[in-house]
Amino acid sequence: MNATTGKPAGLRIADYPVRIPMQVRWSDVDMYGHVNNAVYYQWFDSAINGWLLDEVGAVPREADVIGVVGESACSYESEVGYGEEISIGLAVGAIGTSSVTYVLAAFAGSEARRAALGHWVHVYVERDGSVAPIPSEIAVALKSAQVDIAPLTFRKLSR
Amino acid sequence: MNATTGKPAGLRIADYPVRIPMQVRWSDVDMYGHVNNAVYYQWFDSAINGWLLDEVGAVPREADVIGVVGESACSYESEVGYGEEISIGLAVGAIGTSSVTYVLAAFAGSEARRAALGHWVHVYVERDGSVAPIPSEIAVALKSAQVDIAPLTFRKLSR
Amino acid sequence: MNATTGKPAGLRIADYPVRIPMQVRWSDVDMYGHVNNAVYYQWFDSAINGWLLDEVGAVPREADVIGVVGESACSYESEVGYGEEISIGLAVGAIGTSSVTYVLAAFAGSEARRAALGHWVHVYVERDGSVAPIPSEIAVALKSAQVDIAPLTFRKLSR
Amino acid sequence: MNATTGKPAGLRIADYPVRIPMQVRWSDVDMYGHVNNAVYYQWFDSAINGWLLDEVGAVPREADVIGVVGESACSYESEVGYGEEISIGLAVGAIGTSSVTYVLAAFAGSEARRAALGHWVHVYVERDGSVAPIPSEIAVALKSAQVDIAPLTFRKLSR
Repeated sequence: MNATTGKPAGLRIADYPVRIPMQVRWSDVDMYGHVNNAVYYQWFDSAINGWLLDEVGAVPREADVIGVVGESACSYESEVGYGEEISIGLAVGAIGTSSVTYVLAAFAGSEARRAALGHWVHVYVERDGSVAPIPSEIAVALKSAQVDIAPLTFRKLSR
Repeated sequence: MNATTGKPAGLRIADYPVRIPMQVRWSDVDMYGHVNNAVYYQWFDSAINGWLLDEVGAVPREADVIGVVGESACSYESEVGYGEEISIGLAVGAIGTSSVTYVLAAFAGSEARRAALGHWVHVYVERDGSVAPIPSEIAVALKSAQVDIAPLTFRKLSR
Repeated sequence: MNATTGKPAGLRIADYPVRIPMQVRWSDVDMYGHVNNAVYYQWFDSAINGWLLDEVGAVPREADVIGVVGESACSYESEVGYGEEISIGLAVGAIGTSSVTYVLAAFAGSEARRAALGHWVHVYVERDGSVAPIPSEIAVALKSAQVDIAPLTFRKLSR
Repeated sequence: MNATTGKPAGLRIADYPVRIPMQVRWSDVDMYGHVNNAVYYQWFDSAINGWLLDEVGAVPREADVIGVVGESACSYESEVGYGEEISIGLAVGAIGTSSVTYVLAAFAGSEARRAALGHWVHVYVERDGSVAPIPSEIAVALKSAQVDIAPLTFRKLSR
C-alpha cells in the first residue's frame, strides 16, 4: 500500500505467479478503436480455465463438479489497440471451501503496460447446481498460485 | 436493506426506471449450456448506450466527448438458457462531474427471474483521452433515471 | 432471374416465409463503425435455431440427433450501424436426407434495406458424429418454410 | 485435383504460404462443446488483417482506403475443442483491380488436422464507400502470398 494515497502499490506483471498470452482479434475492437470492455472478461475466463486445464487436466465438460462464475469485475486503466500482444497476470487470492477468488490483470505491448485489473470468483457446484467443495486436485493447483496480493476494489466516484 | 442480513432487499425489475429487452444468441451459450458470463457485459453495454442513443440522440462515433468504461462488475445469481427472453433493468446511481455509475440487473424469462446484478462506471473523456465534464444533455438524461437504489457490492467470500 | 444480367432478381423481405428480429449490440460494431462480418453468422445461426425451437420445441442440448453447420456463406451488400433494427429473412431451399440448405438474408432499418444474403447447410449427426436422417418433426417444419428461392452464389471476382 | 472424384486434393497446412496461430477462447465453445461456427470467421478476419499489418504496417483506422468484406464462406470438416491450438493457413488466390480473394483453412492440434476451409473477398473502398483500387503496397504483399490453390466451392447437397 502507498501510505500517502491509500492505493495499492502499482502491481506489475512480475507480481503475478502465472502469466498467459492472449490475442487481440480484429472483431474485439469496437467503434472507438480500442478493445471492447467485455473482451477482457473473455481473456480472464480463458486464462483461468486454460491454466486449470494445464495444471490438473480438468476437462470441464465431463467433470462432476464445475466452477461457475459467482462474480467478476474489471477496472480499466489504459486502452488496448489492434496489433498489441496481451499477457494476463493471474494470482489466486482467498480460497474458501467451495469458492476461490482470482486476482487478475491485463498487460499490453512489449513493455507490459497495465491495461486493466480484474477480480473473479469461481463457485464450485454439482451438475444440479448445488454448491460443492473445491475438488482436491484443483485446490492443490490453487494453493500453488496463491500470493498475498491486493485485491481489486471499486474506486470511489469522486471526479 | 434487510436489517438481519445487511444485504440489500431483493431488487425486482420494477425497481429499475428503465428496462431494455435483450436477446440470447445461440453463440452466447457456452459448453455448460448457459449464457457465458462475458455476454452480460455486452448486454449492459448495449442497454446503456441504446438508452442514451434514444434519450439524447448521441452518435458516439461523431461525438467530441465519449463515455468510456472505467470499471464494471457483475454478480451472477441464476443461469440463463437459450430461448429465454432478457430484460435489462437500468438505473442511474451516483453522478459526478465527469463520471456516472449505473446500477443494472438482468432478468430472464416471463416471470423476470433475477439472473444478475451489475455495476458500471462511464468516465467521459475527450478524444485525446483527457477527462471531460459529462455533456449537459447527457447529464439531463442521467438525472431522469437516477434513483436511490442499492449499488452492487462484492460478496464476502465465506463459503 | 434477370434475363439481362443473369443475376437473381432482387430478393426482398417479403420473399422469405420466416422473418426474425435481431439486435445490434454495441460490441458488434468494429473499428470501421459498422457491424462486424462475423456477427451476421451469429444472427443467421440464432434465427435458424430460434425458429426450430419455436416450431418443434427442439432442445438441442438434450437431442440425440443435432444439426451441425456443414457450410455457411455470406455476401455483404450494405453496412449496418449501431441503433439499426435487423430482420433476418429465412427460407428453406434444398432438403436432403440428412442435410438442409437455408437461404437467408439480413435486412436493416425501417425500410428493410438488404444488408446481406446468406447460405447455411445443417447436417444432422448422432452424438458420436455419424450422419443421421433429419428427424421427422424437423423435416415437417423445414417443408413448411421451403420455397423456390434463388440460392446465394459466389460473385465472380471481376473488378 | 483428384482425377477420379473431381475434388481438389486434400490441402494441408504446408500448402499455405502464410500460417498464423490463433487461440480458442473459453467463450468460443458453444453448447455442443465445440468451437462455434462464427468464431472461424473471427479467426480468418484476424489472420488476414494481422498479416497485412505485419507486411505493410497498415493501420486500418487511419487509412484512406480500407478493405471491407464483400463475401465470406466456410466449409466445416472437423470439430475443434477447448484447449486445442489453431493455425490459420492463408493464401492469396485471384487479385483484381479493387478486390482480392483469400483461400484459407483452419488446422487444429499438434498434427494440424484440417478443421475448415475458408473463402474471403476483400473489396477496397474509399471512406465514402466508393470502390477504389487496391493500394499499391498492399498489392505487393498480396502478390507475395499468391499461389495456385484450389478455391473453396460449395458442396453439392446430396446426402
